[in-house]
Amino acid sequence: MSQGKISVEEMNARLLEMGEKAKYASYRLAGMSPARKNACLMAMADAIEAAAAEIRDANALDLDAGRKKGLSAAMLDRLTLDDRRIKGMADGLRYVTTLDDPVGKTLSDIIRPNGIRIRKVSVPIGVIGIIYESRPNVTVDAAGLCLKAGNAVILRGGSEAINSNLVLAQCLNCAGVEAGMPDGAVQLVPWTDRKAVSLLLKMSAYIDLIIPRGGEGLIRTVVEQSTIPVIKHYKGVCHVFVDNEADRDMADRIIINAKCQRPGVCNAIEKVLVHQDIADEYVPHLVQLLRDNGVEVRGGPDVCRLVDDIKPATEEDWSAEYLDLILTLKIVGDVNMAIGHINKYGSHHSDCIVTNNAAAAETFLNGVDSATVYHNASTRFTDGGEFGMGAEIGISTDKLHARGPMGLPELTSYKYLVCGEGQVRS
Amino acid sequence: MSQGKISVEEMNARLLEMGEKAKYASYRLAGMSPARKNACLMAMADAIEAAAAEIRDANALDLDAGRKKGLSAAMLDRLTLDDRRIKGMADGLRYVTTLDDPVGKTLSDIIRPNGIRIRKVSVPIGVIGIIYESRPNVTVDAAGLCLKAGNAVILRGGSEAINSNLVLAQCLNCAGVEAGMPDGAVQLVPWTDRKAVSLLLKMSAYIDLIIPRGGEGLIRTVVEQSTIPVIKHYKGVCHVFVDNEADRDMADRIIINAKCQRPGVCNAIEKVLVHQDIADEYVPHLVQLLRDNGVEVRGGPDVCRLVDDIKPATEEDWSAEYLDLILTLKIVGDVNMAIGHINKYGSHHSDCIVTNNAAAAETFLNGVDSATVYHNASTRFTDGGEFGMGAEIGISTDKLHARGPMGLPELTSYKYLVCGEGQVRS
Repeated sequence: MSQGKISVEEMNARLLEMGEKAKYASYRLAGMSPARKNACLMAMADAIEAAAAEIRDANALDLDAGRKKGLSAAMLDRLTLDDRRIKGMADGLRYVTTLDDPVGKTLSDIIRPNGIRIRKVSVPIGVIGIIYESRPNVTVDAAGLCLKAGNAVILRGGSEAINSNLVLAQCLNCAGVEAGMPDGAVQLVPWTDRKAVSLLLKMSAYIDLIIPRGGEGLIRTVVEQSTIPVIKHYKGVCHVFVDNEADRDMADRIIINAKCQRPGVCNAIEKVLVHQDIADEYVPHLVQLLRDNGVEVRGGPDVCRLVDDIKPATEEDWSAEYLDLILTLKIVGDVNMAIGHINKYGSHHSDCIVTNNAAAAETFLNGVDSATVYHNASTRFTDGGEFGMGAEIGISTDKLHARGPMGLPELTSYKYLVCGEGQVRS
Repeated sequence: MSQGKISVEEMNARLLEMGEKAKYASYRLAGMSPARKNACLMAMADAIEAAAAEIRDANALDLDAGRKKGLSAAMLDRLTLDDRRIKGMADGLRYVTTLDDPVGKTLSDIIRPNGIRIRKVSVPIGVIGIIYESRPNVTVDAAGLCLKAGNAVILRGGSEAINSNLVLAQCLNCAGVEAGMPDGAVQLVPWTDRKAVSLLLKMSAYIDLIIPRGGEGLIRTVVEQSTIPVIKHYKGVCHVFVDNEADRDMADRIIINAKCQRPGVCNAIEKVLVHQDIADEYVPHLVQLLRDNGVEVRGGPDVCRLVDDIKPATEEDWSAEYLDLILTLKIVGDVNMAIGHINKYGSHHSDCIVTNNAAAAETFLNGVDSATVYHNASTRFTDGGEFGMGAEIGISTDKLHARGPMGLPELTSYKYLVCGEGQVRS
């Protein structure tokens, strides 16, 4: 498709056309019935399964190019679409049809003393731009969730997956349009040039929200360049604080689960803080347990004094997201010192206290400035599915609009409908 | 005070110190009881009244400078603080103490099948930056509302009001701290240099939200430079559409109220659209009525053909915010044409249909993509007070976080508190 050379001016003109088309489609989507949106989603799911061979062929081109570029085995695996994953994407769309439609909910309904009635009603946000990296399944997942919430979507995937994404987006659009979706509701930026992202981020006349998904570098670039509101999380530097009144077996279970069950995700922990009163006993035990589970432990000076062969933590370690079997350990004076450390070095994502002391738990829950704060449970539960949202479009560590896992309601805005009998202001 | 020459590096260092202090204060504010916050607000109100003479003296310096700079009479009036206005600011703070505290509300509370309890609770946003122009009362109003919602605030007022603002901010801070507010909760940027704004807008490590209040130029600059989320409205280009089934007397009343009662505000109308079926009769009548009320009428070609001496509207007129007794008039084919015009040229602020046809009203309410859509009532009701919010910090035409009038709940975020008995993810 349109991957040939193109000037920046031409690219900008074409992107603006895409934006205008998306905005127009969004007005039609806003008035579409839940049944019609679900019919579109079901048609898209069927179309993806029917196009499995074509999708695999396009994916093979991406995988070839990726091997030539020297992508790691892990990245190639993330890029791969086999029949199981293709079915998974289709089933994901079918699952979205079972979720509650978030549009048209009455959020409040009052009558003022002068007789005007003011209703606050949920409406789609409008046009959402999704900027993401390698996984081509995001193309399908994000489009499905945006459509269900009545939004048009402009997708900008990673260059590694461009062939896969082009076929997937075309599949979604054709099947959707045939089932009644306005043309332009699902569009993919066909250029892998990074300038396309810069141009997209200035299109505030057409795009209402940007959701970047990927590494910290991508997200920082988006935040610096965008004149459109962005919802994001940079990274997950999650903590467990083991209080002096902790059930230590529980602390062990939570730490091993939160670190080892899936170390490469944002809600895995990267740091453990231990109350000084139990450090002499608990820290050597925990280090041994972590090492038995294949975890490299780094530590502050106190920890190094207690246990041999600990790699001393640098200042960078306290804010590092390893996404790997590495963990940094610190001894702190009390729950308030733990809160201070977490608020300073953490990423405001998910943090946990293990304690049987209700007052300490309350202090921690109130004091830690994170999207999700845990008492006696693994941070790995920060997830739209685990929170009962059904599906998530991402996780936010911002404080505006959406914080924590973002489900369908977070893909809506609201408007006020005011009805009167001729009232004027005096 | 610190208005002398200062290098950009030094200014940046000092602003970062202010930011760190504000962030630290915000953590203490987040845990402060409603009673304590109200005591601070009452102390601030008393302090402002007690310092009336000092405030008037500082204000006189600003007024002198303003006269020398050649500020208009209207601008000088906006800048003026007399005893009545000083009392008004103090009473405004006292009124805020009577409003419901928006922090600590349980927004949802569920127990998942695995037994973890997930509570969603309202919390302060953190640190809010307010960037505003001439009116010094914003210093007091914004600080009061931010404090009530548990937020620290960094204020950046206009250079014309710098002396007034410095005295007001010092008054608020001293009285607040004496009543138990953490130092740093209310701070004013003491430099009038525009570079201070540019530096502030990059302090995303300390500031969670920027609210600009002022002209479109100021707001565009803020949006272009900020890496911090911004909630804003550029302007109010509000419409009344008079349907063919309108009660024409009601349309007259609404149009005159929305245009003439206070033409300089954002919820005043700038355009009227008239259904073609009633145009021959209604347009000449309306033009006469508007002229009788001192309004200059501009119009599209159809309008010019119907009425003599109408100034032809240019393309710019359709998206212009006059803030004056000027109005542009257009004839449209039907309600859908009206919606299309409003969505294209309007500012997504407040728009109204006058009709007795329920279906047309429904179409308009659903189709117009504005924060507040009216049926048979004046657009002048778009206001926190009129909406029953008690007070407003501003109006948003964005779709993220807050849309329409923003009261105290819109100055909060939320967090999830997850409590378990050792649950881990399988």
